[in-house]
Amino acid sequence: MSVTKFEIRQGAYYDSVVLMQLQRGLVGLPNVVDAGVVMATPANRELLSANDILPDAVTANPDDLLIVVKGDTEKSALAALGQVDELLTRRKSSTMSEDFHPHSLGAAVKQLPEANWVLISVPGRYAADVAREALAHGKHVFLYSDNVSLEDEIALKGIAREKSLLVMGPDCGTAIINGYGLGFANRVRRGSIGLVGASGTGTQAVTSHIHELGGGISHAIGTGGRDLKYEVGAITAHQALDVLKRDPETKVIVLVSKPPSAEVATQLISAAQASGKPAVVYFIGYPAPARQIGNLHFAVSLSETAEIAVRLVSNSDSLGNSNKAGSAKGYLRGLFSGGTLAYETLLGLQSTLSPIYSNTPITADQSLKDPLHSQSHTLIDLGDEFFMVGRLHPMIDNDLRIRRLKQEAADPEVGMLLLDLVLGQGSHPDPASELAPVIKEIKKNRSDIQVLAIVIGTDEDPQDTSSQIDQLKASGVVVFRTVTEAVEYISLRFSQHKSDGYPPVKLESLTQPLAAINVGLESFYESLISQGAAAVHVEWRPPAGGNEKLASLLAKMK
Amino acid sequence: MSVTKFEIRQGAYYDSVVLMQLQRGLVGLPNVVDAGVVMATPANRELLSANDILPDAVTANPDDLLIVVKGDTEKSALAALGQVDELLTRRKSSTMSEDFHPHSLGAAVKQLPEANWVLISVPGRYAADVAREALAHGKHVFLYSDNVSLEDEIALKGIAREKSLLVMGPDCGTAIINGYGLGFANRVRRGSIGLVGASGTGTQAVTSHIHELGGGISHAIGTGGRDLKYEVGAITAHQALDVLKRDPETKVIVLVSKPPSAEVATQLISAAQASGKPAVVYFIGYPAPARQIGNLHFAVSLSETAEIAVRLVSNSDSLGNSNKAGSAKGYLRGLFSGGTLAYETLLGLQSTLSPIYSNTPITADQSLKDPLHSQSHTLIDLGDEFFMVGRLHPMIDNDLRIRRLKQEAADPEVGMLLLDLVLGQGSHPDPASELAPVIKEIKKNRSDIQVLAIVIGTDEDPQDTSSQIDQLKASGVVVFRTVTEAVEYISLRFSQHKSDGYPPVKLESLTQPLAAINVGLESFYESLISQGAAAVHVEWRPPAGGNEKLASLLAKMK
Repeated sequence: MSVTKFEIRQGAYYDSVVLMQLQRGLVGLPNVVDAGVVMATPANRELLSANDILPDAVTANPDDLLIVVKGDTEKSALAALGQVDELLTRRKSSTMSEDFHPHSLGAAVKQLPEANWVLISVPGRYAADVAREALAHGKHVFLYSDNVSLEDEIALKGIAREKSLLVMGPDCGTAIINGYGLGFANRVRRGSIGLVGASGTGTQAVTSHIHELGGGISHAIGTGGRDLKYEVGAITAHQALDVLKRDPETKVIVLVSKPPSAEVATQLISAAQASGKPAVVYFIGYPAPARQIGNLHFAVSLSETAEIAVRLVSNSDSLGNSNKAGSAKGYLRGLFSGGTLAYETLLGLQSTLSPIYSNTPITADQSLKDPLHSQSHTLIDLGDEFFMVGRLHPMIDNDLRIRRLKQEAADPEVGMLLLDLVLGQGSHPDPASELAPVIKEIKKNRSDIQVLAIVIGTDEDPQDTSSQIDQLKASGVVVFRTVTEAVEYISLRFSQHKSDGYPPVKLESLTQPLAAINVGLESFYESLISQGAAAVHVEWRPPAGGNEKLASLLAKMK
Repeated sequence: MSVTKFEIRQGAYYDSVVLMQLQRGLVGLPNVVDAGVVMATPANRELLSANDILPDAVTANPDDLLIVVKGDTEKSALAALGQVDELLTRRKSSTMSEDFHPHSLGAAVKQLPEANWVLISVPGRYAADVAREALAHGKHVFLYSDNVSLEDEIALKGIAREKSLLVMGPDCGTAIINGYGLGFANRVRRGSIGLVGASGTGTQAVTSHIHELGGGISHAIGTGGRDLKYEVGAITAHQALDVLKRDPETKVIVLVSKPPSAEVATQLISAAQASGKPAVVYFIGYPAPARQIGNLHFAVSLSETAEIAVRLVSNSDSLGNSNKAGSAKGYLRGLFSGGTLAYETLLGLQSTLSPIYSNTPITADQSLKDPLHSQSHTLIDLGDEFFMVGRLHPMIDNDLRIRRLKQEAADPEVGMLLLDLVLGQGSHPDPASELAPVIKEIKKNRSDIQVLAIVIGTDEDPQDTSSQIDQLKASGVVVFRTVTEAVEYISLRFSQHKSDGYPPVKLESLTQPLAAINVGLESFYESLISQGAAAVHVEWRPPAGGNEKLASLLAKMK
C-alpha cells in the first residue's frame, strides 16, 4: 500500500514554474506514485484531496509551500522528499541563462530605457505594487496576474489614465501590439482590424479566425475581464477604443467582452458609434439590439465576430446610414398598443438610451414606478392588464392613447414621441383618422417634438394600410414598418458620446517598435525574444523573499 | 370654471364597448368638457385623476361603475349625467342587430353544433368559467380576456390537454386558424409557415412581414403570454408545435415569445428540433446559442424572424446537418483552459442541456457548488482564479487538466468530454503530446466516452496547429475550430425530446372549416363574419347581471 509524506516550507517564495518543475521532478523519481507541490491555499488543499494525495493532519498557512509525495512505501516517499533541495537547485542551474538579468524593475528600465511596456505575471498579491512602479516609470502595463483586488485595479487604472498610459488587466491573458503578441497570443498576419478584448481566449479565438479567413490584425488591446464592470467603468476599454479610432492602420474595430453592466454597455456602444469606423460588438450573451445600427454590427458568436469584421474591411456600405442621422433632444416617450412591440423596442434601445423605463421592463431596474407617469426615456404598453379593467384595448379604442399623447406633449422635457399602429381584423377601422389630428395639433404647439410610428399591417387589411400611413405622414409622422428600423433611427439620434476629458493615449504607444520589460513568467520573455522584440527579463523576487512578516517589518522601517 | 360631477352604479355589468360609447356620447353633449366612464378600480381612478376629472370624495368599489362628467357649469355637468340612461338605451338599440343572439353558450352550441372554437373576451373575472364551459362542450378556446389568474390558466390548460383541446390564452390577442383571423389578426396570404406565438403583436408583426415578403401562413397558434412560464410549462406551445409538426401544409415552423424560463426554453427548443421541420426561434432578448443548430434557426428581431422563415421555405439546406447526428448518453464534462471559451460554450449549450453547471456561470442557478466536483452537465474553466494560486495556467501546464480528465473519466455517468486547446505564443509548446496519450488511455477503458476538442490556433503558431490536430484525431478526438461548431455538434446529440404522453390535438382541428362561437366583444364576431366564417355571437351577461353578492347567493342555492 502506498504511503503519503509531506513537508512544509514556511514563507518561502518560488515562482509557479519552479513549483511545476519540482512536482514533475518528484513524480519522476523511482517508486513515487504521485506528488503535489502547491501553495497551501484551501483550494489547493482540496485539489490535493481530490487527487487523493492530501495527508491527514496537515496544518499550513495559505502562503506556505506544501510538498507532498506518495510513494510505494514510506521509505520511497521519504527518500523523494529528501531530494527536494537538490531538485530545486538542479532546476535553477538548468534555466539560468547566460545573460545577466536585472533584479529590479528600476535596473531593467536603465538597461532598456526605450521599453514602453512592462509585462507583469508575478503572484497576485505582489502584482499591484509592481504595476504601480511600472506606471511611475511611465510605462504601459500588461498585467497578466490574477488574484488582484478590484480596489487595486481601479486605483491603477485611475493613475494610468491621468498619465495617458494603458493598464491591460489584471487577469489579461492576451494582447497584440504592433504585431507582437504579449502573454498568450496567436501569430496572425498584420492587417486593418483592431480589437478591444475584455476576454483573453475570446481575443485569441477572434484573431485566429480572422487570420484563418484571410484578414489581419492592427492591434488587439486587452482590458482584463473586470474592466467592463460598473465599478471600473471600462477605463481601459474606452482608452483602447479612442486610440484605435485615431489609428490610421485600423479600419474596423472589434469589441469583445462578457456582458458589461448596463450603464457601461451604453457608454461603450456610444463610444464605438462615435468612432465613425465600422465596429463589431460581441458582448457574449448580451441580446443584440439589431444586426446593425449605423456603423455598429452586433454578432452572436466569436466566430461570427471574426466573419463580420473580415467582411467589413472590404465593404464600403459598412457604415450604414449613421452619417445621415440628425440628433434628438430631450426624452423619448413611446406609447404602444402592442406589448411585444414595446418590449422589442426596449430591447433595442436599452443599448443606447440609459436609463430607460417601461411597464414591460426587461430588467428590474427598468421598471416604471407609476404607469401613469413617465420618467426619463419611457416606453409604455397601454394594452397592459393594469389599464384594461372595463376598458377596450388601445387597438380598438384610441381614447387612452390620445389622452396620454397630450400628457406627454405637455412635458417640456419630451423631445420624441413613438407610437405603434397595429392594423388588421378586430382592430379599430381607421385609427389614423383619430390619431393624426391630435399629432398635428401637438406638432403645431411643439415644433421641437418629433413623432414616429411603427405601422404593422398588410395591403389586404381592412383599414387600408397605405392610407393609414399617408394620414400619419401628412400630420408629420416619420413612419417605420418594423421595430428594428425604428430602433436604428432612434438610436442614431440619441447617441451622445462625450469625451471624458482625460489625456488620450498617444498613438505612438502602439506604433513605435515594441520594447518590453518582463516581470514574472520567463516564458513570456522568451516569447517576446522569439518574436524579435527588444525585451529585458527581471529576475524578480518578492520583498523579503516572500516572507510576509519580514516584508511588513521592512516596510515599517522605511 | 368647469365643474365635475359623478354618479356611481353599483354592481351593474356593462361591456367595455358600451362604456366606451357612453363616454363618447357624454363628451359629445353640449357644454361638456370631458367625461370618464370606468370600472372604479384603483388604476382607473388614478387614470381619471391624471386626466384631471376625478372628483374629490368618491367612494366606490372596484366593481362599481363610475361615471364622471366635467361640464362648463354645474348645470351642464348635471344635465349630462341626467342623460346617461338615454345614452345607454340609444346604444343598445343602435347595435342590436336583426338576428337573434343566444344568451348562453349552451344555446349557441345547439345553434352551431359544428363550432370547433369558442372565442372568449368577457371581463377577466368571468372568463375562466366561460372557458371551462367551452371545454366541457369539447371546444377549443381562444381566450382573449386578460386579468385571469395563473391558477385558472394552469387548470384550464390541464383540462384541455387531457381532451386534445387547445386553450389559446388568456391574454391571447391573435391567432390565424385555417386562414381565419381570431381576435386581432392581419389579413395575410395562406402559405406554408406555421407560427406558435406567445405574444400577440409579435405574431402580428411576423405574419405581416412574412406576407409583405411574399410568404404565407398555414396557421398561427397563440398561447398567451404566460404559457411559457415555468408554472404553466408551455402546455399550449407544446400542443401547437406538435400539431404543426403533423400538419402537411406547414413546411416551416416559427416560435415567437418573450424569454421563457430556462427549463421551458430547453424543452421547447428540443421539441422544435424534434419536429424535423426547419424552425425559426425568436425568444425576444434570449441570447441565441448560434445562428443555426441543425434545423433550428435563431433570429434577433421580429422582422428577421419573418425574413429567415420566408428564406427557409425555398431553401432545401434549411435542415442543416441534424439528420446526420448520432446521439450521446450520460453527462457532458467540459474542461477548459480558456474562460471565454467555456462561457461561450455554456451560452450555446444552455438551450439544450439542462441543468448545466459551471464555475463561470451565466445565471446564478448554473453556479457549480464545488469547482473540484462536477455535477450533471458541467463546464469548468480551469484557468479560473480559484485554481491559479501558485500554479501555472492550464495553457502552459497540463497537469491540472490531465488529473481532472482522469477524474471525470472515472465517473460512470460521464458520456462526453470536451476540451479546448489554445495555441500560440506563450502557451505550452506541444500540449497535444501530453493530452493525447491520456485521452487514448481513457478511450481504451471507456469506449462509450466521446472526446471532443476545440482547437484555437493559426498556421503560423509555434506549436504547428495541424500537427496538434493530427495528434488529437489520432487518439480518437473529434476536433472543432470554433465554439459554435462544437455547440452544434453537442446540442444535436443531447437533444432528447420525449412525448409527454397526452393525447395529441387532432389535425382536423386546424384543417376543418372554421366555425366559432363568440362570447364577449361583438367586434370579434363581426370580424369572423366578414371573413366568411360560420359564427354565432352570444348575448352574454354575467351571472346575476354582474351583481357579485347575488351571484354568490345563486351559486350557493345550486
